[in-house]
Amino acid sequence: MALRAALRSRSGLTGLLSQRSSCSSDIRMCVSPLLVPQQRNYSTPPKIRVEFDQSTGVAVMHMQSPPVNSLSLDFLTELCISVEKLEMDKSCRGLVITSAQPKVFSAGLDITEMYGKSPEHCGAFWRSVQEMWLKLYGSNMVTIAAINGSSPAGGCLMAMTCDYRIMADNPRYNIGLNETQLGIVAPFWFMDTMKNTVGQRTTEMALQLGLLYKPADALKIGLVDQLEPEDQVIAVATQTISRWLAIPDHARQITKSMMRKKTIDKLTSNRESDIQYFVNFITKDSIQKSLGGYMEMLKKRRA
Amino acid sequence: MALRAALRSRSGLTGLLSQRSSCSSDIRMCVSPLLVPQQRNYSTPPKIRVEFDQSTGVAVMHMQSPPVNSLSLDFLTELCISVEKLEMDKSCRGLVITSAQPKVFSAGLDITEMYGKSPEHCGAFWRSVQEMWLKLYGSNMVTIAAINGSSPAGGCLMAMTCDYRIMADNPRYNIGLNETQLGIVAPFWFMDTMKNTVGQRTTEMALQLGLLYKPADALKIGLVDQLEPEDQVIAVATQTISRWLAIPDHARQITKSMMRKKTIDKLTSNRESDIQYFVNFITKDSIQKSLGGYMEMLKKRRA
Amino acid sequence: MALRAALRSRSGLTGLLSQRSSCSSDIRMCVSPLLVPQQRNYSTPPKIRVEFDQSTGVAVMHMQSPPVNSLSLDFLTELCISVEKLEMDKSCRGLVITSAQPKVFSAGLDITEMYGKSPEHCGAFWRSVQEMWLKLYGSNMVTIAAINGSSPAGGCLMAMTCDYRIMADNPRYNIGLNETQLGIVAPFWFMDTMKNTVGQRTTEMALQLGLLYKPADALKIGLVDQLEPEDQVIAVATQTISRWLAIPDHARQITKSMMRKKTIDKLTSNRESDIQYFVNFITKDSIQKSLGGYMEMLKKRRA
Repeated sequence: MALRAALRSRSGLTGLLSQRSSCSSDIRMCVSPLLVPQQRNYSTPPKIRVEFDQSTGVAVMHMQSPPVNSLSLDFLTELCISVEKLEMDKSCRGLVITSAQPKVFSAGLDITEMYGKSPEHCGAFWRSVQEMWLKLYGSNMVTIAAINGSSPAGGCLMAMTCDYRIMADNPRYNIGLNETQLGIVAPFWFMDTMKNTVGQRTTEMALQLGLLYKPADALKIGLVDQLEPEDQVIAVATQTISRWLAIPDHARQITKSMMRKKTIDKLTSNRESDIQYFVNFITKDSIQKSLGGYMEMLKKRRA
Repeated sequence: MALRAALRSRSGLTGLLSQRSSCSSDIRMCVSPLLVPQQRNYSTPPKIRVEFDQSTGVAVMHMQSPPVNSLSLDFLTELCISVEKLEMDKSCRGLVITSAQPKVFSAGLDITEMYGKSPEHCGAFWRSVQEMWLKLYGSNMVTIAAINGSSPAGGCLMAMTCDYRIMADNPRYNIGLNETQLGIVAPFWFMDTMKNTVGQRTTEMALQLGLLYKPADALKIGLVDQLEPEDQVIAVATQTISRWLAIPDHARQITKSMMRKKTIDKLTSNRESDIQYFVNFITKDSIQKSLGGYMEMLKKRRA
Repeated sequence: MALRAALRSRSGLTGLLSQRSSCSSDIRMCVSPLLVPQQRNYSTPPKIRVEFDQSTGVAVMHMQSPPVNSLSLDFLTELCISVEKLEMDKSCRGLVITSAQPKVFSAGLDITEMYGKSPEHCGAFWRSVQEMWLKLYGSNMVTIAAINGSSPAGGCLMAMTCDYRIMADNPRYNIGLNETQLGIVAPFWFMDTMKNTVGQRTTEMALQLGLLYKPADALKIGLVDQLEPEDQVIAVATQTISRWLAIPDHARQITKSMMRKKTIDKLTSNRESDIQYFVNFITKDSIQKSLGGYMEMLKKRRA
């Protein structure tokens, strides 16, 4: 059922790799009230805006990198710095991750970081993807994804790192690891994260087919935990997180860490070889050609 | 859904640690017709009553330690002896575990065994909890839990060791590993047993939140296998077990052992370090204080 | 529910071991239009008929070993040769496995290959069962099982090696690993394949009880993915496979291989000891006696 529905709704190759809009005209001055990322180019607006409510101990992280929150090196660096700051702030116990962009949570890895770039650049980029996963999947905070738009590939990965996922109940959105549709393979730690979320069998089929699930189907297979009307997603997330915060931090954190340790250790102890593997793969002529064709296609679609 | 339902029904901190009633006035003389535990103090009634039906090869083990079948050192010792005797009795092929106490299957580990006690005592206690789990999870008998009351923490663990779980369809009862609600962490083999029962994702969320599930929700996630009217639970359990006994013992036992071996080996080969870890944890000042506060709270509630 | 339904429908000991009809009178001359197995005795008709459609890249493999597609040494050898040929043919990207026999997909391992046979013969037979599993579970092709009849034991194993399972919606058919019902134990790689398909808990219960599931129940637990009217199963399978073939081969193959590697490696590195274990087990007097009794019973039922 879910397969057929997912296949039916396959609306093309949106996903994994999204193209950073080269001329982002709508520059907004959204500076985080509390946390200003340190290592960014101040000629561009921040890609992450964090609202931290000291009374509840909950931070809401708005991803605001137009047009589709592509996971670029800059974006990931900014995100990791933000998460690390919150992690070190004892008063911050919960994190809601959401999008400030319309219709999309995150479109996944930024294709321009891997197309026509040096092996060194590709390696640095991949390390930042790993870092994002390690920081979020291993976070001591309660993390809730408020998925208020489509969330393919890397966007789905980010959502799966969270403790709980609430998605907008809009059938035009979808979520999933759709890498194979683009001729790319989700790395083992993407797979492991999905296996931990929806089990071996569903993961095997979803990854082979690169399935993107509509919210209702994602709920059915357990890829998300709850659906809410689009304009309620963030509010419900902050309500839900208060229930998680009722549990003593220390016990909850140890429990979470024990449940995820094996999966995290696997990447930690294979980090360099995973980077090497990615760089070798992505710099292949055939893959570069395929990425180029995909970017061409995206450009045409926009024009 | 299940989360929201479970959270809604959280009726306080009942669970994991239950306080042994210090003056149990209703002493009954329920001596097992066939099996009299050997190593107990005969000034107290037996905490375990076993009815063995030689015609069917099925033993029914009634836990009868008022008020709530707390898993004390004495209780666990008696239970382990009973199970071992049945295990060695070739004519006994099936075991139904149930409660003779009203409204509760077992309230879990006895808090008085870990509060204000010496490290040696805590260690001996923890070894008996391990022993119970090893005996039941590795049993060659068909084991069915007839869960005729609430079954938090250690009570849930005991139920999960069985081959099949039938629970009373009474929405006032609940079942789950709620350790984190008390600031305690379920040890890795509790986690593994739950993962083997309901899968990684459900376990991760249930354990982080210390969720207690109503029967209908427990059925939905697979924590129990069947619901029956309260007064039918034991009868249905003995009927159900006959179907399991239709399978040749040897093949069924090897199958069960192969399916559980990895999980059992993990504790067997880490038994001493697990005891050491528990003793270090439970004798910490902060944990002792929290246990003390919890016992105070229970006393007040009863008064 | 599923358990009770499955138990209710247990219609005897059909399964695992099927007896090869000694006098197969209905010899048909169905020679594969494209692939003629090389190493078979041409005095018997081929047990496997392959139709390969070069325009779609999809091969349909019809098992046609009367009466019930028992997995004999000859049958398995022929099947493995066919699969290997298709695997090496770059133009063949998808494989549908189905039965040309009425009412049965495959009845599982051929009992006559293990009854009254030399250890050497039993070992050679077992190696061919392993080979079938290794070839199918590790296939680079998209594999879909069109299960147009009952599929117990080895038949279920074969179906589970595929990427997707479509079963005839006929309540008289069933599917499952029912080895324990015959006093036999499914080997670890049968178990692993089922765990990868329906998870640990369902596998544990199904294998202990040797459950055979009706199509509707098999769908519920995820043992099959889709039900179709009996006369539509093959057509729907070839339609479905085209969706899988829309995914770039290379990415899909690597993904499949990564998801199954651990399970496959486990048998590959324990192949000889697994054979030794099987031979020791099956040649035991008690097991031989039990097999003999089962064959007697089958003979009487037919008479």
